[in-house]
Amino acid sequence: MKIYGDIQSGNCYKIKLLCSLLGIQHEWIHVDIMAGGTGTDAFLAKNPNGKIPLLELDDGRCLSESNAILNFLADGSDLLPTDAYGLAKVQQWQFFEQYSHEPYIAVARFIARYLGLPDDRRTEYEAKQAGGHKALTVMEQQLSAAPYLAGDSLSTADISLYGYTHVAHEGGFDLSLYPAVLAWIDRIAKHPNYTGMV
Amino acid sequence: MKIYGDIQSGNCYKIKLLCSLLGIQHEWIHVDIMAGGTGTDAFLAKNPNGKIPLLELDDGRCLSESNAILNFLADGSDLLPTDAYGLAKVQQWQFFEQYSHEPYIAVARFIARYLGLPDDRRTEYEAKQAGGHKALTVMEQQLSAAPYLAGDSLSTADISLYGYTHVAHEGGFDLSLYPAVLAWIDRIAKHPNYTGMV
Ligand SMILES: N[C@@H](CCC(=O)N[C@@H](CS)C(=O)NCC(=O)O)C(=O)O
Ligand SMILES: N[C@@H](CCC(=O)N[C@@H](CS)C(=O)NCC(=O)O)C(=O)O
Repeated sequence: MKIYGDIQSGNCYKIKLLCSLLGIQHEWIHVDIMAGGTGTDAFLAKNPNGKIPLLELDDGRCLSESNAILNFLADGSDLLPTDAYGLAKVQQWQFFEQYSHEPYIAVARFIARYLGLPDDRRTEYEAKQAGGHKALTVMEQQLSAAPYLAGDSLSTADISLYGYTHVAHEGGFDLSLYPAVLAWIDRIAKHPNYTGMV
Repeated sequence: MKIYGDIQSGNCYKIKLLCSLLGIQHEWIHVDIMAGGTGTDAFLAKNPNGKIPLLELDDGRCLSESNAILNFLADGSDLLPTDAYGLAKVQQWQFFEQYSHEPYIAVARFIARYLGLPDDRRTEYEAKQAGGHKALTVMEQQLSAAPYLAGDSLSTADISLYGYTHVAHEGGFDLSLYPAVLAWIDRIAKHPNYTGMV
């Protein structure tokens, strides 16, 4: 299988981390967004929405959306609960990630780290802070009560949220305000076969 | 089971539609966002992220995020594929909905329909149009090739996307540009036990 991505993107790194934890062999194909890599005809034929990460199976079938890819690759592993409610809780956290976390934390990081916080994006950058802190507060509450987001063991929900949370400081978020989140970051980084972003 | 929501919100209506299609009995509890209904201590104890829809089971367990609720309630029904790839495709479309569709189409509709397109939101409203049309174009491409988003039969992916797509004109989107999307809207509305938004 092939995975198209950029390891510096949290959405792509999630897949790299999961593959490492589960020992899933794959070919990683680097795509440079800034150079238009997601806008070529060849790429759009694989993902009409023009985004990485993208999974391409050996038979040519493709799958996009980082969290859908995670759940597909984790199928049958201990990173996914087997009961309907447990599975739904994992998805709850993943939809939370895409709607209430990533659009604030990942975008603030992008503006600061990739664009160098230019003046014409400063208002937007500042507007992202409140939403990011709200998301971190929701995580802190859960992680004060349980070691992992969906309960007692690591699941794809943790991998989804770890992607951008562990680099949130690059978007201006002071994680020392969230001790349970910091402890969870440490816990994840200690898992066997963990791999970092760089 | 109890469902907390506002039927005029596409995210909440999705759940109402699924319950109707599958004949799932529930108590619907209306929550008025504008009056602060999602910000009370009682509500935040059930969903710390302060959003509707919210599902509360008879044993008190809660589940938030519209698409996670849909997949939980559809478990074991013919609205979800049983193979891992099919299930992942459903999720792909649902994450697409939350990330690349709802933030444009639902927000444009909210500004136009609920706020009456005030001058100080007009720039934002206009900025939402391109992203909304991009999402509709991605849907049009898929629905020109297959009757439903995840293939040959109706799934929770269709219900997720139907929520805001069928009222996209209220956000200024001319759906006559997307004939396959219009045909799909008709197809869904003809399902037995279909229920509309009002
Ligand atoms: N919801 C998507 C978001 C993916 C996404 O935003 N990818 C970015 C890189 S982090 C991208 O490909 N951007 C290029 C573009 O949108 O043109 C996912 O979770 O996979
Ligand atoms: N990602 C959530 C979005 C839900 C959402 O945005 N709900 C709105 C109503 S449509 C809400 O409760 N807003 C109140 C708030 O955010 O304070 C889902 O799919 O359930």
